[in-house]
Amino acid sequence: MTSAEEEKQAHRLRTLEAFVEDECIPAERVKEIKARTGSRWSEVPAVMEQLKLRARALGLWNLFMPPGHPGTQGVSVSQYAALSEVMGRSTIAPEACNCSAPDTGNMEVLAQYGSAAQQAAWLPDLLEGRIRSAFLMTEPETASSDATNIACRIRRFGDKYVVTGRKWWSTGAMDPRCRLFIVMGRMEGAEWDARPIHQRHTMLLVPARSPGVTLERALEVFGYDDAPHGHAEVTLRGVEVSADAALLLGEGRGFEIAQGRLGPGRVHHCMRALGLAERALTALVRRSRERIAFGRPLCDHDMVRRSIADSRMELDQARHLVLDCARKLERSGGAKGAMMEVAMIKVVVPNVACAVIDRAIQVHGGMGVCQDTFLAAAYAHMRTLRIADGPDEVSAPVVLQR
Amino acid sequence: MTSAEEEKQAHRLRTLEAFVEDECIPAERVKEIKARTGSRWSEVPAVMEQLKLRARALGLWNLFMPPGHPGTQGVSVSQYAALSEVMGRSTIAPEACNCSAPDTGNMEVLAQYGSAAQQAAWLPDLLEGRIRSAFLMTEPETASSDATNIACRIRRFGDKYVVTGRKWWSTGAMDPRCRLFIVMGRMEGAEWDARPIHQRHTMLLVPARSPGVTLERALEVFGYDDAPHGHAEVTLRGVEVSADAALLLGEGRGFEIAQGRLGPGRVHHCMRALGLAERALTALVRRSRERIAFGRPLCDHDMVRRSIADSRMELDQARHLVLDCARKLERSGGAKGAMMEVAMIKVVVPNVACAVIDRAIQVHGGMGVCQDTFLAAAYAHMRTLRIADGPDEVSAPVVLQR
Amino acid sequence: MTSAEEEKQAHRLRTLEAFVEDECIPAERVKEIKARTGSRWSEVPAVMEQLKLRARALGLWNLFMPPGHPGTQGVSVSQYAALSEVMGRSTIAPEACNCSAPDTGNMEVLAQYGSAAQQAAWLPDLLEGRIRSAFLMTEPETASSDATNIACRIRRFGDKYVVTGRKWWSTGAMDPRCRLFIVMGRMEGAEWDARPIHQRHTMLLVPARSPGVTLERALEVFGYDDAPHGHAEVTLRGVEVSADAALLLGEGRGFEIAQGRLGPGRVHHCMRALGLAERALTALVRRSRERIAFGRPLCDHDMVRRSIADSRMELDQARHLVLDCARKLERSGGAKGAMMEVAMIKVVVPNVACAVIDRAIQVHGGMGVCQDTFLAAAYAHMRTLRIADGPDEVSAPVVLQR
Amino acid sequence: MTSAEEEKQAHRLRTLEAFVEDECIPAERVKEIKARTGSRWSEVPAVMEQLKLRARALGLWNLFMPPGHPGTQGVSVSQYAALSEVMGRSTIAPEACNCSAPDTGNMEVLAQYGSAAQQAAWLPDLLEGRIRSAFLMTEPETASSDATNIACRIRRFGDKYVVTGRKWWSTGAMDPRCRLFIVMGRMEGAEWDARPIHQRHTMLLVPARSPGVTLERALEVFGYDDAPHGHAEVTLRGVEVSADAALLLGEGRGFEIAQGRLGPGRVHHCMRALGLAERALTALVRRSRERIAFGRPLCDHDMVRRSIADSRMELDQARHLVLDCARKLERSGGAKGAMMEVAMIKVVVPNVACAVIDRAIQVHGGMGVCQDTFLAAAYAHMRTLRIADGPDEVSAPVVLQR
Repeated sequence: MTSAEEEKQAHRLRTLEAFVEDECIPAERVKEIKARTGSRWSEVPAVMEQLKLRARALGLWNLFMPPGHPGTQGVSVSQYAALSEVMGRSTIAPEACNCSAPDTGNMEVLAQYGSAAQQAAWLPDLLEGRIRSAFLMTEPETASSDATNIACRIRRFGDKYVVTGRKWWSTGAMDPRCRLFIVMGRMEGAEWDARPIHQRHTMLLVPARSPGVTLERALEVFGYDDAPHGHAEVTLRGVEVSADAALLLGEGRGFEIAQGRLGPGRVHHCMRALGLAERALTALVRRSRERIAFGRPLCDHDMVRRSIADSRMELDQARHLVLDCARKLERSGGAKGAMMEVAMIKVVVPNVACAVIDRAIQVHGGMGVCQDTFLAAAYAHMRTLRIADGPDEVSAPVVLQR
Repeated sequence: MTSAEEEKQAHRLRTLEAFVEDECIPAERVKEIKARTGSRWSEVPAVMEQLKLRARALGLWNLFMPPGHPGTQGVSVSQYAALSEVMGRSTIAPEACNCSAPDTGNMEVLAQYGSAAQQAAWLPDLLEGRIRSAFLMTEPETASSDATNIACRIRRFGDKYVVTGRKWWSTGAMDPRCRLFIVMGRMEGAEWDARPIHQRHTMLLVPARSPGVTLERALEVFGYDDAPHGHAEVTLRGVEVSADAALLLGEGRGFEIAQGRLGPGRVHHCMRALGLAERALTALVRRSRERIAFGRPLCDHDMVRRSIADSRMELDQARHLVLDCARKLERSGGAKGAMMEVAMIKVVVPNVACAVIDRAIQVHGGMGVCQDTFLAAAYAHMRTLRIADGPDEVSAPVVLQR
Repeated sequence: MTSAEEEKQAHRLRTLEAFVEDECIPAERVKEIKARTGSRWSEVPAVMEQLKLRARALGLWNLFMPPGHPGTQGVSVSQYAALSEVMGRSTIAPEACNCSAPDTGNMEVLAQYGSAAQQAAWLPDLLEGRIRSAFLMTEPETASSDATNIACRIRRFGDKYVVTGRKWWSTGAMDPRCRLFIVMGRMEGAEWDARPIHQRHTMLLVPARSPGVTLERALEVFGYDDAPHGHAEVTLRGVEVSADAALLLGEGRGFEIAQGRLGPGRVHHCMRALGLAERALTALVRRSRERIAFGRPLCDHDMVRRSIADSRMELDQARHLVLDCARKLERSGGAKGAMMEVAMIKVVVPNVACAVIDRAIQVHGGMGVCQDTFLAAAYAHMRTLRIADGPDEVSAPVVLQR
Repeated sequence: MTSAEEEKQAHRLRTLEAFVEDECIPAERVKEIKARTGSRWSEVPAVMEQLKLRARALGLWNLFMPPGHPGTQGVSVSQYAALSEVMGRSTIAPEACNCSAPDTGNMEVLAQYGSAAQQAAWLPDLLEGRIRSAFLMTEPETASSDATNIACRIRRFGDKYVVTGRKWWSTGAMDPRCRLFIVMGRMEGAEWDARPIHQRHTMLLVPARSPGVTLERALEVFGYDDAPHGHAEVTLRGVEVSADAALLLGEGRGFEIAQGRLGPGRVHHCMRALGLAERALTALVRRSRERIAFGRPLCDHDMVRRSIADSRMELDQARHLVLDCARKLERSGGAKGAMMEVAMIKVVVPNVACAVIDRAIQVHGGMGVCQDTFLAAAYAHMRTLRIADGPDEVSAPVVLQR
């Protein structure tokens, strides 16, 4: 980085830190209370739109988009990694900055693999935060840890595709603003069955309100339904889409896109997770100073000190690993050059985040498992990261000796 | 045991196993659906009353009550331990058998420490399952890991006590059937402050609907509110109770009761937890046989096999430890004779249960964290056991070398 | 047990405890010093023979031999388990009581599978402790975790077998008193290659000083050579033995013997390991009371208390598991009835023993890793148990869900 | 770094890598065999002197010395960190490059705190590798985890100090080339007792062969005596030294020196440990590819793959942490600016190194615990790092939240 770039990044970080601490975190409770009352699934709490206006005003909008793509602010993978950690401290800051999953990944896919017409159709609204999108990959009937199992059927009829399948964990699909699905499915037909296993799947752009789409139900994560965003189970029954408008990159190239989507996306995900875990550690330390047991504040008990120390050591190590991965992705210009690093952070970070948050819960006692802090919900969501996009058991073996 | 007793116990176990597997577990979903709709906090799903009738008819009622006490079925601590494990497999079987916390502990306290009048006032309705009760110990403002911190104030005025304080995690206090609170508080007055730290607290029987009692709110456990039973935050503002009717055992003897309540209660708790964890392991194994990834069922992957093996080894060891504790409690006729064992199972079992359930979640993937199985809620509740009644960090050091 | 048997067992335990604490443990240092000087490999320190005389006089001789076999003292598997734990506290007590591996397993094999002539040839001297024996199973060239890999060749010529192969970790083979090897090898010939994989191996009795036997070298365990007993690498080059005198049970039945040898043997091994780990915990506690750091004895530091608590919890659980395995072996009259339990203790106990001893080393600081305590050597030897007879990775998967 | 510096460092790394792999590692066995025979404690195997000549010729001599000090090659802390990792792969490379503990730390102390006369007296011979030195800190009678316990007495008489005490773990004190001790002791006298606890100790230069010095014995590390270098127990009985020649920095300033010695020293130590652990991982991977069990090479078993992955993830994270610490030390110009980082690497690295080497041992089976690989000795020595310079339990709590 030149020193002008460094200064710009430092300024962004400072601005973002203040925004997250002073505006987003205090608004979390407001959002939550709104989300508990009234029309939980049909209304987005107003505070979100206010925060989005603030983020735009502060120049904290669409920071995720890599240089060279529409809407970019010219932030590199490494720079965005640092910003992601700060955003991740708050459960609502990413959305406030239009940097929340799965929209970020979806916008990157459009920018990288979409045709001009596809980009024109969807990107402006997404980049403005007017609509949202979902990514329909995982299926209830197949072990998604092995993504070649994906069975949702795509068949071509002339200039149309017909899609039939059942998806779940489609985060954001129930959001009242959601308009676009990116759907991964398997091409039907004998010629496709004969192809190599990673060349049978296709990704399609499917308008969320297409005939044949049913939002079956909202999945809960350890009791949290995350309304109004939520995690949907969705069926597609003979959903028809125009081939030109829908086909991304090419038939049979779904895995190619999935792979490209994963690299920087995982860096973002991991940095947000570390941000949340850092917030948990801050809460742990604060609590341990305030609370007295057996005549001493908790922070003077060796076991609590060890909890703090272990957390600090694990978080610092994990962050170094993610930042190193970000630098390698940047240098190699794609996930290919850092496959092992991407696999490593996928395994390391969710485990570290869960461990740190779990310790913070323990030190908070009963307060830690209930709605009085962000900790229990944070744990629940971090726990899903050990499963999402393939479990530890699948990622770990990728990490073979250099 | 004589062989007649052995046969009786074997019969009870078989009957209970069938009841739990064939009637309770299938009813869990029914209860849950009911509890999600309509008047969540004011109505108990009808299926519960039906199961209670069945349990009575099958002779599976009030099994927890030790020999020599009202309502007892003559089941020893060790025998009840085995029955608890079976009940624990289902989240609703304990209530169906009138053997659910905190009523069991409360009934034992009444039976052991209550006057004849106190017993007459409360025990019949509790033993019949017509009313429920809560135990008001933990407080939001103090570190309950050190119970001598308990600050709820009790002051004597003539033949009355006036109680003022704030309690939380009062499980069952919001249940529409709840009528009785057992409240732990600290005696006010200089003469009490001068007493040894474990002789300042008193336990009182407080009618749940006394003037001055406010149910502030329902606490959630990782997103679950457990309606209609729930976990309440309760304030007592100048609540007046008649001294004779309220005072348990004697002023300043609260810790004595708390201690007595803990021994067998922990055995029950732990065995229920192991039952739930065994159910999780059964689910893990079943899933691992059905699900295919990378060309083989999951149970043919070494990592999954190791998960199963570790779970089996941990559960078997933990069970042996609890059963050994039960035998020692039985032999010594009280918690005093098995203090170390009681501390050990308090630490070991919740950790093992969490570990096993967590592995089962992992093998279930996305299904494991949502409402489609009992696993996520089971994890959340087992997690609280590492905190309730004192965290690991407090219990572990009790376990000093014999 | 009848009460007479119980009294007898209680008496044995008391006698053994006194013998181990008052005579064996103090003699360890003497033995070690002797073993460090003079003819390390050709002389057994005299103190061993003195202890053996004492053990015989005290009725503590050959306790391992199961009822119904030559030399038995009528001790059941469960009873011997309890005695093994006590013996295991001292590194020399098992030999003092003629109950040390590998002789115990070898004597059991002779008693169970040997012909009358084979028994007559070897058992009297072994039972008297006049000679010792070794078990030649593991090989340097093959992964012994999968015992079907064993490649030492056995070929029949008329009434002779000729054995050629290389073995290692032949514990005791270098002992100046060693006279007998039990050798596992694979039958040569096409008809044998066609047999099922577990029916190709044979066990032979081979006199230790047969022509063609070379003791290649002593293997060290983390720097300890365990002279004069030691762990040998042995080559057999065309070693000829008389078929009648050598063949155990039958050609191709080697795995049958190996399996039978494993059940009770593992119980013994595990209980001895627990005894040693208990001694380490006693040392840990004692040291933590004597040593002052930061103004308090170590035992007043939470971390040390947690070390003690974890050790106590792990040891008690492991012991319950082993004793349960012993009862099941007894009841089923063979390893078949308790395969899973035998696999579980194989994994659990060495890991627990290593963990406990490692904590004891940590609390001893520099003293813990050097020759001033038994701890470092104890750790080294316990560590090998995670490898010997198959590593954790092989045993664990045997533990499938019941 | 300028690009000329970068090129220089890259060249040094390449040269060192070749020297370590091609010359040092093959010579380890030679050195070991020599050290096992003949006059173990009085002779240094000749191969060491040959390697030292080679290292000098290759410009790999005294790389540790920081810029601005005598003998320096101008290598920064970060650069030396990278070089340390490479040297650490071989157990003899550090000595070959005159970069082995405790001489490196001792030379740094002389360079930083020694008077001109003291430097002239000792540095040339040390820098040439003609003599060696020891650091006498730890004592058998006191818990050295709390260094203020150090009790060796120093009393001033006119222009002399008299030193009396017992030290142990004085690594290298028995080396036939050892000429200098740096001794930490406590000033005697009431005025010293009145001082703050960290201002009572003094460091003295004591000629190794002073009257009153006795080398009591060699301490073993898990059975390894590390002759001829070794770890000595040393008594000093009324050892007299000239005050001018002996006093380092000033009376009562011992802790100041100890602190300064620790920062970069720990970085070196940790990087060497990571180098050794990397070598263990390389061995693990190689072995897992060669060895077949259950029909597949070990590296195709999930558990082994997970071992490799965990090792890779832990090593990479630990290395990032140490390199970050090195950069902070460099930037702050002293240990003060990176106290937390220095504490963290002290805890993290030995644990990671032990874990990785332990896994490598497991995959090697019996070969891993004996003298056929470097693994068992490596484990033993890494294990001592969890104790040396203060155990984990002391270092961890230093790591408080930033």
